[in-house]
Amino acid sequence: MGDSPDDRVAGDDIARLVEQAKELQDSAAALISRTSREEDELRQRVASLDSHIQSLRNLKHDDKLDEELIKARYILSEGDAAAFLPSKSHGSFLKMFLGPINVRATRKDVQLKVKDEYNNFRDRTSFLFLFFPSLLLMLRSWIWDGCLPALPVQLYQAWLLYLYTGLALRENILRVNGSDIRPWWIKHHYCAMAMALISLTWEIERGPDCAQKQRGVQLFLKWAIMQGVAMILQNRYQRQRLYTRIALGKARRMDVVWGETAGVEGQLLLLCPILFILQGFEAYVGVLLLKTALAGFFFEWQVITCGILLIIMAVGNFANTVQTLMTKSRVKAKIKRGRSKH
Amino acid sequence: MGDSPDDRVAGDDIARLVEQAKELQDSAAALISRTSREEDELRQRVASLDSHIQSLRNLKHDDKLDEELIKARYILSEGDAAAFLPSKSHGSFLKMFLGPINVRATRKDVQLKVKDEYNNFRDRTSFLFLFFPSLLLMLRSWIWDGCLPALPVQLYQAWLLYLYTGLALRENILRVNGSDIRPWWIKHHYCAMAMALISLTWEIERGPDCAQKQRGVQLFLKWAIMQGVAMILQNRYQRQRLYTRIALGKARRMDVVWGETAGVEGQLLLLCPILFILQGFEAYVGVLLLKTALAGFFFEWQVITCGILLIIMAVGNFANTVQTLMTKSRVKAKIKRGRSKH
Repeated sequence: MGDSPDDRVAGDDIARLVEQAKELQDSAAALISRTSREEDELRQRVASLDSHIQSLRNLKHDDKLDEELIKARYILSEGDAAAFLPSKSHGSFLKMFLGPINVRATRKDVQLKVKDEYNNFRDRTSFLFLFFPSLLLMLRSWIWDGCLPALPVQLYQAWLLYLYTGLALRENILRVNGSDIRPWWIKHHYCAMAMALISLTWEIERGPDCAQKQRGVQLFLKWAIMQGVAMILQNRYQRQRLYTRIALGKARRMDVVWGETAGVEGQLLLLCPILFILQGFEAYVGVLLLKTALAGFFFEWQVITCGILLIIMAVGNFANTVQTLMTKSRVKAKIKRGRSKH
Repeated sequence: MGDSPDDRVAGDDIARLVEQAKELQDSAAALISRTSREEDELRQRVASLDSHIQSLRNLKHDDKLDEELIKARYILSEGDAAAFLPSKSHGSFLKMFLGPINVRATRKDVQLKVKDEYNNFRDRTSFLFLFFPSLLLMLRSWIWDGCLPALPVQLYQAWLLYLYTGLALRENILRVNGSDIRPWWIKHHYCAMAMALISLTWEIERGPDCAQKQRGVQLFLKWAIMQGVAMILQNRYQRQRLYTRIALGKARRMDVVWGETAGVEGQLLLLCPILFILQGFEAYVGVLLLKTALAGFFFEWQVITCGILLIIMAVGNFANTVQTLMTKSRVKAKIKRGRSKH
């Protein structure tokens, strides 16, 4: 087999290639069928042990035994065996956009990498989330004479639509990969997607009394700036939790189950008031939008719908933040109780 | 271990569960590392054989040897070994929306199922594609007195945006799974996404002279109806090709490489003129939009951009349809030449 283009290759060589291709095809078929058989078998064993653990946890035990059960469950769900736990359904959102393709990673380190990249995505976008509305509001008072032009606002709204679609898709993928993300946060992003889509059809009024007519848009931009600040703080907090978890996984994964919130307590103290203020402001903007629309300055269904969506999101966010805090304090109390007993 | 809730479970039983969980975790880790080692090995062998075949195909041979090389390549790319061929990069569109998650199916039958579901999705949506604009135009003359209201048109445009985003995502996934979809058709859907997004910000004029001002929207809806008809015909054609291919794969996969276009020739004769007429109409609508915008009835950047996008899509579609036809006729000539020689 020479290198010059006019070399002729012997038929024997090519026949051998065809043979090799057939061999590889056979090896591939064998490997795939053996692997999927072994995986199915392991999947059955993991599922049966998991349901056994779950059924025992529903019975009453003292704290010591309960902790052992949690440990067993933790071993299954945090290690490589997690890939063989019964998968959460892909959900209709993923099916709607991607079809029936499997988005579950089999290896735990890949799953953690996916989560890490999700945090990176949030980091990158949260700065833009802060930057775009600030820029729009600054240009409005410096250059645009108090009156926002349509195109830059619409570009921003299109970017929001992309951002929330991307977040909703990624969060659904995380959920399939075993993340314990609260369903509400995904629903929250569906609401935000709807709001971005609706705001695109929202007419940006121009003319002499635009300052009055654009009140809705301005309120929305101010809320977005606050949201950007909260996202940046939230990301820092989440990221430190994940890194603690990865580090725990690498060290003695099973023994320090509840250590993961250590060291980030201080940040939570800063984060919570900001989140509550933001949720209050979100509801306030929603009510203002409703008032603006009903006062008749510009009665459009878009303004009313966005107002209602903002109020729903504010209430939902508040309820879920409170629930998260309550779970955390219950866990903390349990650890303390556990420690005093041992 | 009893069934009544007040039964207490012995500590020994639970300790055994923890042991079992550890064992399963170890088996899972072992299976995953062994499988990924074996897969890597196979991947290397497949990649080296594939590049060997490719390098030989660049040399000159007589048709007989060339056909053998194509056969070897076909064995690699159509069977289970295909899962181990070097993967096409996921591309920035998928990364933008989904992050770094792997969407490649390892089994050929799963890959074909994904393609089948993609065809189902196109089927379902192509009827809606025909139905929605027809309904809007009918209601316009029957009920709305010649003047389209904003909300139904915007709902339709939002649906279009979802549809094209879903198609672009699914086509990128198909490409990663080894489909030979032409890059242009994916780019075409990016253009269509942009157009749907832009049309959402397009003000739907109301008032006495709306018939004149809504000319752009009406033209767009008429084009969409034609597009729906073409999509339905195209789907029928693609589906029959896929089924032929699956059937061939089940029967004597490697021996009947070029048979797949048999039996659908007649449909292609019907499809081609319709596609060309549609592309002509697409360009015509684009030019009309530009003319409407420049004549000053309503000078908006949205109308101009949509006009330009339609013309780009028409030209690209035309060029790619012609290229596809030329490839098909070259293949046909080759088969004929091959048959007369044997």
